[in-house]
Amino acid sequence: MSNNNISRHISGQFNIELEAIRTHVLAMGGLVERQLTDALHAIHYQDLDLAKQVIKEDHKVNSMEVSIDEACTRIIAKRQPTAGDLRLVMAIIKTITDLERIGDVADSIARTTLENFTNQQQPFLVSLEALGRKAARMLHDVLDAFARMDVEAAMKVYRSDDDLDREYEAIVRQLMTYMMEDPRSIPNVMKVMWAARAIERVGDRCQNICEYIIYFVKGKDVRHTNREEMEKLLK
Amino acid sequence: MSNNNISRHISGQFNIELEAIRTHVLAMGGLVERQLTDALHAIHYQDLDLAKQVIKEDHKVNSMEVSIDEACTRIIAKRQPTAGDLRLVMAIIKTITDLERIGDVADSIARTTLENFTNQQQPFLVSLEALGRKAARMLHDVLDAFARMDVEAAMKVYRSDDDLDREYEAIVRQLMTYMMEDPRSIPNVMKVMWAARAIERVGDRCQNICEYIIYFVKGKDVRHTNREEMEKLLK
Repeated sequence: MSNNNISRHISGQFNIELEAIRTHVLAMGGLVERQLTDALHAIHYQDLDLAKQVIKEDHKVNSMEVSIDEACTRIIAKRQPTAGDLRLVMAIIKTITDLERIGDVADSIARTTLENFTNQQQPFLVSLEALGRKAARMLHDVLDAFARMDVEAAMKVYRSDDDLDREYEAIVRQLMTYMMEDPRSIPNVMKVMWAARAIERVGDRCQNICEYIIYFVKGKDVRHTNREEMEKLLK
Repeated sequence: MSNNNISRHISGQFNIELEAIRTHVLAMGGLVERQLTDALHAIHYQDLDLAKQVIKEDHKVNSMEVSIDEACTRIIAKRQPTAGDLRLVMAIIKTITDLERIGDVADSIARTTLENFTNQQQPFLVSLEALGRKAARMLHDVLDAFARMDVEAAMKVYRSDDDLDREYEAIVRQLMTYMMEDPRSIPNVMKVMWAARAIERVGDRCQNICEYIIYFVKGKDVRHTNREEMEKLLK
C-alpha cells in the first residue's frame, strides 16, 4: 500500500469516527431539547408524572456527555487531528458541557414542578410559559445551526437572546409585584423566580454554542468580543 | 542526531510548553481568586472604588481564558500529546471555563455593590460574609490542589461544598424572612439573594475543578458519579 493510500485510509476512518461523534452530539441535543420542553410542559400543566419522567431521564444526558467526551479525547489521541478537524472536536467538547447544563435546567424545573403549587399559585407558573417557549426555540434553532454548522443561523440565535432577556426582566418585575402585594406568597414565588432565572440561563448557554459554531467555521474565538465585532466577522 | 535524541528533544520541548500553560492557569487562578475576594470585600464594606476596579479587571480574566485555550489547542495540534499529557491538557481546558465563570461571579457581585444600598440594608449584605469567606476558601484550596495535582486535597475541597450549601440555605431562609416582614425591602433583598446564589455556585465550580484533578491523576471521569464511588477511587 502506498503512503498516499494509507493516509487516505486513515483520513477515511477518521471521518467515520468524527461523523459518529457528531451524530452522537445531535442525539444528545435532541434528548436535551425533549427534556427541556417536557419540563416546561410539566410545570405549566402541573403534570407530575411527566416531571418525574424528566428527572428519571436526566442521567441519560449525563452519561452521553461523559461518553462523547471520552470519544473526543480518544480521537485526539489516536487520530491527532489538526486545523478544522481539531476545531470541530474542541467545539464539540465545549458544546456538550453547555448541553448537559441545559439538561440540568430541565431537571431543576421538573423538581420545582413537584413542589405542590396550589391553584392560587397557577398565575406565577403561567408567567413562565412565554419565557420557556422562547428558550426552547433558541435551543431548537442552535441545534439546527450546529447540525449544519451554519454561521448565519447561529448569529440569528445569538441575537434572539435579547428578546429572552427582556421577557425575563418583565417576569421578574411581575413576580416582585406579586410578592409585595402578598408577602405570604414569597416562598412559592421565589421557586418560580429561580425557575425563570434558570430558563433565562438557557439562552446564555445557547449563545455559547453559537460561539463554538463560529469558532469552528471561522477559526476565530469570539467569546468575550462584542456583538459588532462578531457581526463584522460574518460579512 | 539519533531518533532517541530527537524524541527526547521533542518531549523536553513539549514539557516546557505544557509547563508554561500550567503556570498561566495558576496565574489565572490567582487573578480570579483576587477578583472574588475583592468583590466580596467591596460588597461587605460598600467599597465602591474597589467594586469598580473588579469590574474593570474582568476582561483580563476573559482574555486569559481565550489565550490559554488557544495554547491548549496549539499544543494538541503540534505535539500530539497522549495519555497523561493529553488528560492534563483536557483538564486545563475545562478548568479555565470554570475559573472564567467564577470571574463572572466576582464581576456580578461588584455590580451589585454599586446598586447603592442604604444603611438599613446593611444587614442583608452582612449575611453574605460567612458564605463569601467559605466560597473564597474553597477556591483557594482547589487552586492549591490543582497546582500540586493533589487528589486528597481535591477530595477535601469537594466535600466542603456541603458546608457552603448549608450556609446558603440558611441565608435564603433569613432573606425570605426579611422580605416577608418588610415587603418594601423586596427589590433590594432580591439583589442580595442573587448575589448569594452566585456565591453558592462558586462552590459547584470548585467541585468541577476537583473532578478534573481526579480525572487527570486517576484517569477516570468522575462527573455524575456519587460521592461514595469517588471516595472508593481514592482508596
